[in-house]
Amino acid sequence: MGETDAGLIVETINPQGTGQIVLACEHASSFIPPEFGNLGLTDTALESHIAWDPGALAVAQRLSSLLDAPLVAQRVSRLVYDCNRPLSSPGAIPVRSEVHAVPGNAGLSEAERSERANRFCKPFRKALDACLDARMESHGKPLLVTIHSFTPIYFGVRREVELGILHDGDTRLADAMLALIEGNAEPVVRRNEPYGPDDGVTHTLKMHGLSRGIPNVMLEIRNDLIANPTGQAEWAARLAALLRRAVRDLSAERGERSHA
Amino acid sequence: MGETDAGLIVETINPQGTGQIVLACEHASSFIPPEFGNLGLTDTALESHIAWDPGALAVAQRLSSLLDAPLVAQRVSRLVYDCNRPLSSPGAIPVRSEVHAVPGNAGLSEAERSERANRFCKPFRKALDACLDARMESHGKPLLVTIHSFTPIYFGVRREVELGILHDGDTRLADAMLALIEGNAEPVVRRNEPYGPDDGVTHTLKMHGLSRGIPNVMLEIRNDLIANPTGQAEWAARLAALLRRAVRDLSAERGERSHA
Repeated sequence: MGETDAGLIVETINPQGTGQIVLACEHASSFIPPEFGNLGLTDTALESHIAWDPGALAVAQRLSSLLDAPLVAQRVSRLVYDCNRPLSSPGAIPVRSEVHAVPGNAGLSEAERSERANRFCKPFRKALDACLDARMESHGKPLLVTIHSFTPIYFGVRREVELGILHDGDTRLADAMLALIEGNAEPVVRRNEPYGPDDGVTHTLKMHGLSRGIPNVMLEIRNDLIANPTGQAEWAARLAALLRRAVRDLSAERGERSHA
Repeated sequence: MGETDAGLIVETINPQGTGQIVLACEHASSFIPPEFGNLGLTDTALESHIAWDPGALAVAQRLSSLLDAPLVAQRVSRLVYDCNRPLSSPGAIPVRSEVHAVPGNAGLSEAERSERANRFCKPFRKALDACLDARMESHGKPLLVTIHSFTPIYFGVRREVELGILHDGDTRLADAMLALIEGNAEPVVRRNEPYGPDDGVTHTLKMHGLSRGIPNVMLEIRNDLIANPTGQAEWAARLAALLRRAVRDLSAERGERSHA
């Protein structure tokens, strides 16, 4: 693979979708290109949340249908390069992830790190930029929603939150969503949990959302809830309804017409 | 979704790949668009081989890397429409698959069946045709290889075959592959097993391979062997080596230069 292999690295599903939302899924795939020899990891590690966000693509694909939204999804494991981290972050090419060492990422030079970023992250950024820019021209300002999942048990500690609504400096879409579910006992929804902007997880929001001044949010679903098709369908339907209403509320505030 | 939603239905990975082989994966995904309400099936059924070929896309994606081959993959479950069946076959939109009834497919009119074919199969055929036609012009005659997996236990009977090399009227590529592994005890490879052209499984080969006079083969891997990344990597490496040598042997016979 070389610089020309973007088709292996990233995919845009439903690029002509007419909805107002653009979806992104940085951790859609656990695929590690053959040349990396699985980075020296066991199958258990390779199938776990350290390699990808289980269930996130399945939910995002359904959301893409329900909202008629373009979806930009990374085809390559976050262990090769985590597209939601800047190159300056150790987490971009982790030498350790939760309890697992990642032998294939140890001892890389700066040049090797840059090459990983160029090959595996730049195509994702270009695809998402292209998708957002095209819509800025044709449909008016889009909204950016990134879809993630998190592990229910992290370093042995059980997480009670079911849906995390994460934001960086632009809180508009997160606020609108949280306002709609305020007072509901279920599901357990939290702002900027189980982690947030201080943990360095809002890189995509900053690069593609804040930079354009468009409303943006990162949704984190606990992965045990979306492990099977029924859970994926339920959560996609719930999030589609919530996003539609939040976009409508935001548009009403701004005196615009929503077509999410 | 409507006629314009081809991006949700089919994907072409690595469309600019320079290898001689074009890969296709008709049963890559278990995704059922939200409007079908999971066709009335349980999660167990939806995650089983009746909805997709588990592991096939993971192997095909690795093969696409190893052979620098374009890969056309269907994004929608075979239960919505099986792109490896003609519309005239009951299996195209099955009302029963192995032991499971499929309530959402019962009682469809001819018009509804045609609509399913138009929405869910035509985009796949068009994408595969486009890929093959483009290569006929730019790279000379391609070879078509379709990647499938089969269940180790079917109607309660254990299958011993590990790799099935299936063909229809054009046996060239299958013969070349089988000649290379003749006499090997492992893996257990069989011609036209666990099923073959008489079972109606060579529709894609006929539509896209035989119609063009290009060598073609359908590879069926037992799905327990490709259930995890290590197995997927092993089988992709094995099949890539076998295909490379078979293409070279075929090209030598024809006095051509191979670049698979």
